[in-house]
Parts: sequence; C-alpha cells; structure tokens
Amino acid sequence: MSRFTAFLPIAGWLKTYSRQDVNSDLFAGIITAILLIPQGIAYAILAGLPPQLGLYASILPPILYALFGTSRTLSVGPVSIAAIMIASALNAPEISALGNPVQSALILSAESGLIMLLMALLGMGSLVNFISHPVLTGFTSGASLLIVGSQLPQLAGLKSPACGFHFACYRDYLLGYNSAALIIGVAALIVLTVFGKPLTTLLKKLGVKLSLATAISKCGPLLTVLLTTVAVNYFDLSGQNKVAVVGRVPAGFPALTLDFIALEKWRLLLPSAAFIALIAYVESVAIAKVTANLRGEKIIPNQELIALGAANLATAISGGMPVAGGFSRTMVNFTAGARTQMAMIIAAAILALAVIFFSPWFENIPKTALAAIILVAIIPLIRLKNILHLWCYDRGDCTAETVTLLGVLILGIEKGIALGIILTLVNQLRKISRPHIAVVGRITDTAHYRNAKRHSVETWHHLLLLRIDESINFANIDYIEGFVASELILQPEVKHIILIFTSVSDVDTTALEALESLNHDLQASRITLHLSEVKGPVLDKLERTDFLKQLKPGKVFFHTEDAVRELA
Amino acid sequence: MSRFTAFLPIAGWLKTYSRQDVNSDLFAGIITAILLIPQGIAYAILAGLPPQLGLYASILPPILYALFGTSRTLSVGPVSIAAIMIASALNAPEISALGNPVQSALILSAESGLIMLLMALLGMGSLVNFISHPVLTGFTSGASLLIVGSQLPQLAGLKSPACGFHFACYRDYLLGYNSAALIIGVAALIVLTVFGKPLTTLLKKLGVKLSLATAISKCGPLLTVLLTTVAVNYFDLSGQNKVAVVGRVPAGFPALTLDFIALEKWRLLLPSAAFIALIAYVESVAIAKVTANLRGEKIIPNQELIALGAANLATAISGGMPVAGGFSRTMVNFTAGARTQMAMIIAAAILALAVIFFSPWFENIPKTALAAIILVAIIPLIRLKNILHLWCYDRGDCTAETVTLLGVLILGIEKGIALGIILTLVNQLRKISRPHIAVVGRITDTAHYRNAKRHSVETWHHLLLLRIDESINFANIDYIEGFVASELILQPEVKHIILIFTSVSDVDTTALEALESLNHDLQASRITLHLSEVKGPVLDKLERTDFLKQLKPGKVFFHTEDAVRELA
Repeated sequence: MSRFTAFLPIAGWLKTYSRQDVNSDLFAGIITAILLIPQGIAYAILAGLPPQLGLYASILPPILYALFGTSRTLSVGPVSIAAIMIASALNAPEISALGNPVQSALILSAESGLIMLLMALLGMGSLVNFISHPVLTGFTSGASLLIVGSQLPQLAGLKSPACGFHFACYRDYLLGYNSAALIIGVAALIVLTVFGKPLTTLLKKLGVKLSLATAISKCGPLLTVLLTTVAVNYFDLSGQNKVAVVGRVPAGFPALTLDFIALEKWRLLLPSAAFIALIAYVESVAIAKVTANLRGEKIIPNQELIALGAANLATAISGGMPVAGGFSRTMVNFTAGARTQMAMIIAAAILALAVIFFSPWFENIPKTALAAIILVAIIPLIRLKNILHLWCYDRGDCTAETVTLLGVLILGIEKGIALGIILTLVNQLRKISRPHIAVVGRITDTAHYRNAKRHSVETWHHLLLLRIDESINFANIDYIEGFVASELILQPEVKHIILIFTSVSDVDTTALEALESLNHDLQASRITLHLSEVKGPVLDKLERTDFLKQLKPGKVFFHTEDAVRELA
Repeated sequence: MSRFTAFLPIAGWLKTYSRQDVNSDLFAGIITAILLIPQGIAYAILAGLPPQLGLYASILPPILYALFGTSRTLSVGPVSIAAIMIASALNAPEISALGNPVQSALILSAESGLIMLLMALLGMGSLVNFISHPVLTGFTSGASLLIVGSQLPQLAGLKSPACGFHFACYRDYLLGYNSAALIIGVAALIVLTVFGKPLTTLLKKLGVKLSLATAISKCGPLLTVLLTTVAVNYFDLSGQNKVAVVGRVPAGFPALTLDFIALEKWRLLLPSAAFIALIAYVESVAIAKVTANLRGEKIIPNQELIALGAANLATAISGGMPVAGGFSRTMVNFTAGARTQMAMIIAAAILALAVIFFSPWFENIPKTALAAIILVAIIPLIRLKNILHLWCYDRGDCTAETVTLLGVLILGIEKGIALGIILTLVNQLRKISRPHIAVVGRITDTAHYRNAKRHSVETWHHLLLLRIDESINFANIDYIEGFVASELILQPEVKHIILIFTSVSDVDTTALEALESLNHDLQASRITLHLSEVKGPVLDKLERTDFLKQLKPGKVFFHTEDAVRELA
C-alpha cells in the first residue's frame, strides 16, 4: 500500500482530508487562479504563441501534478524561463522554416514530458544534483535579462526594426514608440509596484490578516489587466490599431488533440525539448523544496519527474505549452494558506471556467500591460549581486556563474546552460586533480597528527607522514606521485613513507596500478611504503588485490600513532 | 639557463655527451631504423596513404622530438593506432568526397601539431590525467581489433566485395583469396613469430649478449620484407598483377611542402585532428613514462606537448602522416641501449639515406607481408583479459573499459573514445554524489572514533556523530541531507549532531547554502549542529562567511573527543 501511495501521493493525503483543509485550499486556489490567468496569457505571448496555449497549460497539467506530485503547494503551469526557452527554440531558423509554431510548441511539451518520464524510469531523479546553484543562478539571471530585453520594446509598443544596426535606423526604431502603449504600460507598472510591498505593508499596519493582505496584493496583475482592457475598450485604442492587443481567444474548453504527432519535427526539436525538460525539472524541484522545507515536508525527486512528465504530456494533449513549477505562484499559493494539492485542482477548475465563459473578454488585453506584468515578475530573478558574494567564497563557483550568465546572453540559452554544466564538471575534475596533501607530524604529547605547516608538531628525519585529502584516482595519482617525489628530494634520509588514508574513500584501477609501481620504485631505493587509517571499504577493495602483499615489509596500520611508535 | 634547458632539453644532455654514449646510441639508432623502415611503409598503407608518407614521417619528426622532448628513448614516428584513426577520418563520406587524401593527411598532421602546441600554451599537459587507464586500454584493444579486421583480408589478398552482406556474396568474397598472397603472408607470419621470443630465447641459451640478441631478433620485419620482395621479383608476382605490392615510392629527400594550407578542409578535419592529437599525446606520454621509470628519469607532460606538437608540424611540412611515440619501437630503442635522444637522430638519418638511395627497392614489397608485420605488432595490444581482472576490483572501471571497447568497435574510433571519456566523468560524479557516511562512536577507553557498523563502539542517545567521507558539494549535499534526516528518524532523542570533517577538503557554494538551511531547520527542531576536525583550508573558507556565526550555540571542535567530552 505504501508503494502505491508513493506512486500516487494523492491516495495518501486524500484519506485524511478535512473540512478545514477545504477552506484553506479553496481560498489559496482562488488567489492562485487570479494570478494564473494573466500569467498564462503573458507567458504564452512571451513564448511567441497564441494566448490560449498558456491558458490550456494551466488546466490539465496542475491536475495531473496534483495526482502524482510530492509537493503540496507547487503551482505547475506556464513559467517565464520555460517561455523564453520555447521562444528561442521556435525562433531557430531550421524550426521556424517548418512553420506551424503551435504544433512545434505541442511537440516540445510532448517531448519534454516523455524525456522526464524516461528519466524517472532510469531513476535519474538525482540528476538534479548535477546542476550546481551557481550555474542555475547564472542561467536564471541571464534568461531573465533576455526576457527584460524582449519585454521593454513591448512595453513601449515599438515595432521590430525593418533595417540593420546602424544608428539612424536604431534612432527611428526608438522614436517609433507608441505613446498610448507607453502610457498604459507605465501605468500598469505603477499599479503593479504599488500592489507589491507598499500595499502589503499598509494593510499590515491597518491590522488586516496576513492571508487576506496577501490575497489583496496578489490581485494586482488581474486588476492591471482589467483596468487596461477597460481603457483600451473605452478609448477604442484597438480599433484604430493603435495598441497591440492579445487578439481573439477561442472560447470553450480545449479540445484534446494529437496534433503533436509529426515525427519529422521531433528530431529537430529534441535538443531544445531536452534542455526545457532539464531546466523545468531542476527549477521545479528547487522551488518545491523551498516550501516543503518551510513545512517539514519531503520532496521525492524521482516522483517529481513522474508528476512533471505527466503534466507535460497532459499539456501536449490539451493543446498547451510546456509547463513547470513557477516560483512566484507557488509562493502565493503557499502564503495564501494552501494545505494540499487540492488548491491546485481548484485553481485549475477556475481556469477552466474562465476559458469557457470569459474568453471573449481577453481579446482586448493590451500587450503592453502583459509586458509590465512579466517585467515585475522577472526582475527579482536577476541576481547579479550574487556574483560578487560568490567571488569572496569560491572563485570556481563565481566563474561558473559568470560564464553561464554571459553564455546565455551571448551564445543563447541552450549553449549557455550547456557551457555552465560542462564548466562545473571540469571544475570538479580540476579540484580532484590537485588534491590537498599535508606533510603531518605529531602534536607533542598527544596521539594527534596535524599539518606540519599549520601546527607546531614533532617530525622524524627518516619518516615521511603524508595525509592525502582526497580519494585517489586517475585524475590525481600523477600529482600525488609528483608530490611524493619532491618531498623525497627535500628529505633524502627518509626510509619509511606512511600514507594516511583518513580522507581516501576510493582507490580506482589507474591509481592502484600507479601505487603498485610507486611501491616497486621505492623498494628499489630501499624506502618502505606503509598505509594508515585506511577506511573499511577501501581496505576491503585493496584486500581483493595483490597490493598489500607487494607492500611487505610495508604494513597497514590502524592508527598513525601505531605506525610512528613502531617506526620512529 | 635552467629555464632554457627546460624548453630545449637537448641543450642539457648534449653538454655531457660522451664517446660511450655515441657507441650505444649508434647501435640503438641502427636497430630502430631497421624496424622503422617496414613499419613506416606498413602504417602509411594501413592509413590508406602512399608509403612515402610513413617514411617522411620518420625523418624530421624524430629530430624535432629529439630537440624538445623530455624522454631519452621515445621513438616518434608513424604508429598503428594513429594510422587507423587517420584511415577512419579519411574514409568518412564528407572527407573522402573532397578527394586528395594525401592533402587531408597533411592537414591532420598540421592541425594535431597546432592543437598540441595550443594545449602546451594553455598548460593543459595534465589533461593526460583525464583519460583513465581503463578507457585507454579499452580504446587500444578496440582499435587493435579494428586493425586486425582490416589486415586479415590484406593477408589473404582478398579484394573488397562488390556486393552487400548476403551469404552468397560473402562466400564469393572469401573464396576470392589470392593463393600467392596467402602463402607469402603466412610465411611472413612464421618468420616474424620465429624472430620473436623463440629466437631471443635460443640466442640467450647460446650465450649471446642481450643487446645483440635483441638486435638480431628485431631484424625480423626487415628480413621478412627482404625475403618476400625477393620472392615477388623472382616469381614475377607483381607483373602478372597477382599480388598487391606497395608501388612506386618517389626517390629522394621529401620536398618541404605547404600543401596542407587548404582552409576549407580544416574545419571538417578539426574534430578528427583533435582526437588524434589527444590519443597521440596520451599514448606517447604513457610510453615515455614506462622507459623513464625504468631509468629513474622524469617526463614533463607539458614539454612533451611542445615536442610532439613540433614533431607533428614538422611531419606536415615534410609531407608526412601524423606521428606519435610507438610502443614497440621505443622498447626496442631502449633495450638496444639508447642513452640519449641522439639515437633517434641517428635513426632518422638512416631513414633519410634509405629514402634517398633505396626507394626503388620498396616498389615490389608485397602488401601481404606488411599486413603480417602489422598483425604481429598489434595483437599484444588486445588486452581482453584485463576486463575480467578489473571486474573483481572496480566495476565502474570495468564498465568504462568494456563500453569504450564496444564503442570503438560499433560506433567507430572517435565516438568510442568520446563515450569512454564521458563515462569516466559521469562515473566520477556518481561516486562523489553518493559519498560514504559513517555513524561513528568511540572505541572504549580510547579517543579514537570509528564506524559503528564495523567496530564495537560507545555511542550516546542524544549525540549523533557523522563522518562524511567526501568533500561536500552540489553533487552530494542532497544525499547528505537525506542521510541526516533518516538518521534523525532512527534516533529521535538526538540533541546534538557533530559532523566530522576529516575527509572534507572543500565545501562549495551550493553545499554551504544547503548547510545553512539545514542548520536553520535543525535549530527550529531544537537540535544543535557542530563541526569537528575541520581542516585548515576548509575552516579558512568557512570563516569568510556567516555560517560559523549562524551555527551558534553550535561549535567547531578541534578534536571529536573534545566535542564528546563537552556534550556527552
């Protein structure tokens, strides 16, 4: 039974579902839906797709996630980072040449869903650990900057330039701004900013309950959309084609579709889908963990792959764009008091009702207002200060973050993240390949051995005690051999070398062969090699080889102190 | 001055060059040249190139290596593994479509030379450490099997089949063997085998000096070539077009050429050149180390990059194929008594004389004899037993070797080695991502702490002592958090957790953030986190952050014993 609830978490929490839970979830669901409608439309347009693809992506996918997901509050649906990745994939010359971007988007949904399910099947949930935070932060900041760059022209109603990048043309492009769009956009920005922190602070001062204050402040985007749409209608701004608007949204529930079955496109879109799947998964788990930690709940990475994979297949079938967990919506859902996945189901139901009954109302939403909503949501994700902070702590991490960010901006989204991941791997190997090795000595009158460079310790002319602070393998055995050789030049009287293995958790084949030949060479120079403090698993492994026999008269000592007592 | 001799090692050894050195080097040089002539021709033909490309590659390149190289005995010239890589690159449809394979080969020489020099400039000599022995062995075995597969038909004088892979066609193909070629080939195999171990053993028994016995036995290939060529001439086998022969070799010294400057081909050949450079470098250093270790000399990887890069540029300019250090020739050079790089220069001079005066004699060398020479040289490089041996010691390494071998056979040479390298990296991350964590306790009446699972130790209800046997980073922090959480479920009374950092050589940014939030969560559950035995560099790094402050009342203990005394 517990296996069943592990696969279908809803079977677990639904049994203990109470009336109090209903009330909390209903409230949180409504607030989330209020945020989801403008975000859904905005992110679809950001991805270069018709608005309904964002709305449809907000109905079935969260329901599927509610069935399979382990997070109780993750709000799955269209997200800004995935949207810009979709836009980048669809704008690639070989993809756009094929036409039918809606179909391409559905294929991206289906492919990323299948990739996630395949990863789940292969138990690759822990893959999330192979993208380090600096790479993820660099990527998010870079992608967010790209989004800002794409939305500022929308805010001012600029039309894409007809000419190249010379000054006169660029000036004409900037001067071609649309005053009505700019006024609406700036007004939207002001409303959104006021509905952020200032309003919450004010409401708190007035003694309004936190959950209600959150609820009110989260109505900002919907209110912005309402007010600006009313303005467009009242001044007839769309009729004169003055301000770009969303356009007709088909009414009614999304029809199930198999439009994504177009195999000739699948191969071309596969790399982009893989990156979208990877980022969607990694970001979603990171977000899910934040709220889970706050409540002491547990996220199971592999189960998240299943849930997100199912959600993405659902969005493909219901004609939506790829989905992931969104940070701002999840935090809203959480602070509004969502207790279980029921809140997501309620939000999805509200979205479905909105699509059925209110579609005609979406037609005149001005794009400039949506650009304002995206800008306000995305700017906090640009964390450039982080780089300075990292610089002090770990230069490798700082380099990885900077390179990923610049990579995303210069090479593009997919190459940028690939560069970041490769850099982390190389960095990791670099660290392993130059392990810290300490010449140690005994702290007088104790049995403790410490680095001779840092502590005042007792040493012996004919004994060389080396503590190798890393597992020994193909990447660092050469460095270790070199270190031993140079120490022997400094201390020519050495007769016994004791390698202290406290930090050695593994000795791979390459390293074992090299140690065998090192021992052989040392024996030829009448120096005996010993080991001490070898951990159980390593000793087990070495005992399966001839190495310990070859070591004789060298020994394996349990404590370094035993070795020194015998040899000093 | 020492910097100068580091860059130009010849300036170092030439100063102390003695008459005795001359004698030894002269003898070794002659023996190496005797081996080099048939090998040069054979490997050029193996690569699908005219024979002179192998001969030219044996003149200037070893001289350049003698100037810059740090090995005193490495025999640089055409080698079998590089030859099959060249053949594979030249046979790729997009390369062969361009025509002029000789030019393509020169470009491969020039590009791999430039890549090595660039790597030297970037100080990437330690890159040699990123290819593990299992991957290298798997690659060598796979490539050798491919060579055997390509040479067996040559031995029997089979003509490439005109039809596909159905049985009748294949039978006709096999029945189309050339009896004259087969007889010559098998005779050559017998001569070569007899000149191997049996003759050396016999000569030893007769009391012949080791160096002379080696010299005589190494004349096998040249004698084989001589005898088979005489047979071809005597029976007029080439005139009737019965047996495939080498064909006309232009007489005279190679003219310097800039034929490799054909930029449109450079981009296409670059990936193959990169793989050739990588393998040539890694194999050469591995071979150089073997003989250097036997004499207590030192190989400097970065200087080897310069020397091999210069040698490959030299082969490009003098119209030769890419070069590397050859294992069998180097061992011959070494056992024949070569003392310095002068032996290589002497061998190169002999090759030059051979090319000038004896070229017409090479025309009627039967290809079947060359196939026999290659087969005898290559078969010892197939080390399948190694895989079984590895299986017992390290399964990850065994998998890497098997996959690389199968990759080379199935996917081809370049994809096979790339697969092997990627697998090693992933393997490495996998090992890091699941570190060994031990719950430790005190061995009664001592201050030693050991794994509670392996030793009978003293533990305390409210204390949890965890020794993390790996540096903490993005790849494993999740696993570590999960381990702590599950231990807390097993021991609900725990009030203090002590993380023992004996094996922790680094804490990266991702891990630091996670530790901060773990500490925060633990404090909320009234559990205090402590650290002990933190190494100097790690403590320095942590002191630059807020973490140690956040830890309070948690402390950093110098010894685990101090922590237990205070908290138990």
